[in-house]
Amino acid sequence: MHILVTNDDGVSHPGLLALAQALRTLGKVSVLAPDRNWSASGHVKTLHRPLRVRDVMLADGTPAQASDGAPSDCVALAMMGLVEKPVDLVVSGINPYANLGYDLTYSGTVTAAMEAVIAGVPALAVSVDGSEEQPVSDYGPAARAACRAAEMVLAHGLPANVLLNVNVPALPEEQFRGWRITVQGTRIYRDQLLRRKDPRGRPYYWIGGQAPTGVPAAGTDIGDLAAGYVSITPVTLDLTAADFIPALEGWLKP
Amino acid sequence: MHILVTNDDGVSHPGLLALAQALRTLGKVSVLAPDRNWSASGHVKTLHRPLRVRDVMLADGTPAQASDGAPSDCVALAMMGLVEKPVDLVVSGINPYANLGYDLTYSGTVTAAMEAVIAGVPALAVSVDGSEEQPVSDYGPAARAACRAAEMVLAHGLPANVLLNVNVPALPEEQFRGWRITVQGTRIYRDQLLRRKDPRGRPYYWIGGQAPTGVPAAGTDIGDLAAGYVSITPVTLDLTAADFIPALEGWLKP
Repeated sequence: MHILVTNDDGVSHPGLLALAQALRTLGKVSVLAPDRNWSASGHVKTLHRPLRVRDVMLADGTPAQASDGAPSDCVALAMMGLVEKPVDLVVSGINPYANLGYDLTYSGTVTAAMEAVIAGVPALAVSVDGSEEQPVSDYGPAARAACRAAEMVLAHGLPANVLLNVNVPALPEEQFRGWRITVQGTRIYRDQLLRRKDPRGRPYYWIGGQAPTGVPAAGTDIGDLAAGYVSITPVTLDLTAADFIPALEGWLKP
Repeated sequence: MHILVTNDDGVSHPGLLALAQALRTLGKVSVLAPDRNWSASGHVKTLHRPLRVRDVMLADGTPAQASDGAPSDCVALAMMGLVEKPVDLVVSGINPYANLGYDLTYSGTVTAAMEAVIAGVPALAVSVDGSEEQPVSDYGPAARAACRAAEMVLAHGLPANVLLNVNVPALPEEQFRGWRITVQGTRIYRDQLLRRKDPRGRPYYWIGGQAPTGVPAAGTDIGDLAAGYVSITPVTLDLTAADFIPALEGWLKP
């Protein structure tokens, strides 16, 4: 069993280390991750410039590779031969903040998993529900949850086009209320635009504001995670809004 | 009626000019677009640095704004007050190459439309099926198709979470076979990794290879566009793989 681990916070992030260590109980783990933070970077394919890859060492002394590309580039590089083939599973994380609702297409953690699915390899994105006020101090519970989810994927497989988006409460395991299969909930962004003048009097803009909230409906990623469950949302790369097709067909009728 | 136009090829791209000119027949058009090309940049929210916005002029002498942010940043900036409110519709394009199948989450053209939908504004992404071998010389047919699609959206509205992904054949209008509502097809990427040594003997990697193809099945974006139809795919931002939930629930049963 060969598992590729990547993330969007950079190869030296403690969430990645905890994940790689936990997954080693399932098989061989290769790490190819960005050399810096790529949060909210989206699904990138870097074609306009060359990419560098260098050998590095995780804090536990195990070898890894770091690239100056985005998380999705790291997965693409791995799939095109920078790690040993075959890769049976890609696990991306552990992100220190939850990836919920509309976060999915922005998230480097999730778009790395998307890149794996496009390459035909099952994938998981794993995040833990930390915050700036309460940063995650122990990635162990989330790493063990990721390991259990990975075991299930390796046992059952995933349909084409589908990845699992796993969000774990920032709690000790004994405080988890259980595991729930969820749907994508409704995120509420609270971005605000800061308008300032630079030292030369010219305007600049900075997107700020508070962290996003969401509608905590039961059965959704947002609601069940907030209630203390490990949330697993199956995410498809088929973005067709099939329900809306009959209405659209009506638009074209003369 | 107030329409925001953006793109991922940069404010000076002829596809944007043709689009803005065509949409002016429907109402007021504001342009806020990147100051450079952002192809395959994904869904970006730039939080780690300030953004600049400057007044520019399109080739027809009309005013526009250019930002050093990504296409999705341009939409966010516009929605947060850099263009007059309210905005009734966002149209992104015209991209010189088709955006089909798995292209959606990579595409700056499409992720700009996603950003609008997240902000609660209906949106269209518009692309024309050009190629490196046969670059688009006349954006007029695609601009008029975009204008017709925009009129339909303004007349009927779109459901929450849904945008329209419009792909137009690179043909004169009289050669269009018609319009089709389509589902997302299967893209086939043909990326290849170039491995080279730099002048100092250190390795670098460059993602190259031929342009993607796809499975040209009838009823899909890829198949119907290739057959000469204007393809309209409704795209949802709810990425839940609902069909797979019952099977996943089974995984958790003891």
